Amino acid sequence: MSALQSFQDFLYRNIPLVQHMQLELKEINEHRLIATAPLAPNINDKATVFGGSSGALMTICGWTLIKFNLESYDIHNDVVIHKAKTNWVKAQTDDLTIQVALNEKQDWQALTKKLSKKNRPKKITVDCHINNQNHEPCSTMTGHYVILKQSK
Amino acid sequence: MSALQSFQDFLYRNIPLVQHMQLELKEINEHRLIATAPLAPNINDKATVFGGSSGALMTICGWTLIKFNLESYDIHNDVVIHKAKTNWVKAQTDDLTIQVALNEKQDWQALTKKLSKKNRPKKITVDCHINNQNHEPCSTMTGHYVILKQSK
Repeated sequence: MSALQSFQDFLYRNIPLVQHMQLELKEINEHRLIATAPLAPNINDKATVFGGSSGALMTICGWTLIKFNLESYDIHNDVVIHKAKTNWVKAQTDDLTIQVALNEKQDWQALTKKLSKKNRPKKITVDCHINNQNHEPCSTMTGHYVILKQSK
Repeated sequence: MSALQSFQDFLYRNIPLVQHMQLELKEINEHRLIATAPLAPNINDKATVFGGSSGALMTICGWTLIKFNLESYDIHNDVVIHKAKTNWVKAQTDDLTIQVALNEKQDWQALTKKLSKKNRPKKITVDCHINNQNHEPCSTMTGHYVILKQSK
């Protein structure tokens, strides 16, 4: 099983909403994440994507990009979302492709060294968007996350 | 069955995520809505409320305050979320109380007359917050919604 598949299993076991939304993590590297989710569990009364689902999917995908990279350097500090600006720009009637990128390039190795030495919280901003199957963006989110200090 | 209970049933039938989150609509009037949700279906890996759940709960509650009031005047225009600013201010470890208020007092009767006459989209802003069981706010959202034109 790939590390990304294991991470998805961890999400499914620990965050019931993520399992319900049928999020699938597809590709990840140090800067970006691609994931998908089907329309059916995320639909609303107008047979379009529920805005609460798209927001929640971007929230967990932004978190995953940061947390997965930290874990790969064996850093286990908690990561939390602090604030977000979300825009729903187009009604979406098909399956979702979620894309996340770091707002600023991150040297994870340098960061993880800093975190273990200084043990101070660290802010990270990510840009997320969800495309429909015609590659048109339907919702966007700028999310501000915090890597918390390691608890003593 | 009360009108609010019927509205909750409508949400459960049409938006699977709302049913999964076990949202319960408690009280509504022309200006505010109070709702609840249990921790269990909305929990995360840290045994606190998943930020995606709190965002989605505030998204649907803001929408409900607007849609329920329009429906009570027999106005069936679609309502959609356009943008939101969300803050997660405190980790929450217990059941959720969601409170929503209109950002500006609304004369629904005048608005519904205007909507049927002019058939133009209309923006409405709501302020949402989620308290823990000690009445402390844990997340807040300012949501901008649009009442769409009636389709011909």
